[in-house]
Amino acid sequence: MFPPTDPRLAAQVGFILEIDRLKGVVRRNLIADASRRENTAEHSWHLAMLAGTLAEHAATDVDVARVTRMLLVHDLVEIDAGDTFYYDSVAEVDQAEREQRGADRIFGLLPAAQGGELRDLWEEFEARETPDARFAKAIDRFQPCLLNFHTEGGTWREYDLTRTEVLAKQGSTIEDGSPSLWAYTLELIDEAVRRGYLKP
Amino acid sequence: MFPPTDPRLAAQVGFILEIDRLKGVVRRNLIADASRRENTAEHSWHLAMLAGTLAEHAATDVDVARVTRMLLVHDLVEIDAGDTFYYDSVAEVDQAEREQRGADRIFGLLPAAQGGELRDLWEEFEARETPDARFAKAIDRFQPCLLNFHTEGGTWREYDLTRTEVLAKQGSTIEDGSPSLWAYTLELIDEAVRRGYLKP
Repeated sequence: MFPPTDPRLAAQVGFILEIDRLKGVVRRNLIADASRRENTAEHSWHLAMLAGTLAEHAATDVDVARVTRMLLVHDLVEIDAGDTFYYDSVAEVDQAEREQRGADRIFGLLPAAQGGELRDLWEEFEARETPDARFAKAIDRFQPCLLNFHTEGGTWREYDLTRTEVLAKQGSTIEDGSPSLWAYTLELIDEAVRRGYLKP
Repeated sequence: MFPPTDPRLAAQVGFILEIDRLKGVVRRNLIADASRRENTAEHSWHLAMLAGTLAEHAATDVDVARVTRMLLVHDLVEIDAGDTFYYDSVAEVDQAEREQRGADRIFGLLPAAQGGELRDLWEEFEARETPDARFAKAIDRFQPCLLNFHTEGGTWREYDLTRTEVLAKQGSTIEDGSPSLWAYTLELIDEAVRRGYLKP
């Protein structure tokens, strides 16, 4: 570290270097060409692009700039907490606690008001109570389904999942944020069963 | 491809799957832990985070949401044109033409108005005439300097560059977008020379 003399800029540069580590957090799902697993930094970029592209399909009007910002920061806590695989119910047990500690440390690197604003966005995303958060969460769930389908089943196949398990786990998260993306997700899931990417 | 029946959503999903390829475009510079080269998708995420974090250092007031969006799309053309290394003057010759063709194809995947809006943002970024574009370009230049320094020279060292070459190539791009980031970049460069990461 060779920090700037201005303490605000020093804190910001420290944060920027720290979050670079998100490029090294590896998720379960594959990228679309199936050549390797996706990392969380490129995943966050992809979700931000999905939000801008698919905003017209949100259940209610959303502030696209806020949704974009929310998706850019939504997984920063994984730098400390790691990626918890969506179907891993053991890791889920202490996930919330690990993520809160991660949030304390990572957002705490920034000047207080700035870190607080990002943390609030992350908490809003996690709570999934506002229209912006509901749409952001829907996007975060939709993208892995799309990638799973286009990698001949991806993690659905790797973990030998059934249609019933996938639907139970998804619950209404995609539907709450975007009924039309949910309708398409159901078509993807049914086609995945027909193609043998997913068990019935 | 298993496209949605709605033609707009089909075009959007096609675009989303196509831009996934940016995760496979590899840049020259290393990520901060020096473990591997950076890909352009995660680079774009990082720049979007830098823009939000460093907006107060912009030369003039900027619209952070627009700068963020600009940085998210600024390298999409590399899917077709590839990443042109900043110090590669041979590849630079037909870079502009390759990038324009890439822009025609990639932004052309979207419904016309939507693709047009992203293309306009990209053209604005490239022209570097507006305050938003000047700040976005400054961020795009500052981040590799920061990563080079924190990887003990990175591409500066790999390509055996001198301080003079780096300064000549940077020109006023960082300074025009952010005088304070440029002041810090100069400190980084001088410290890099002292540490032997960069030749004098």
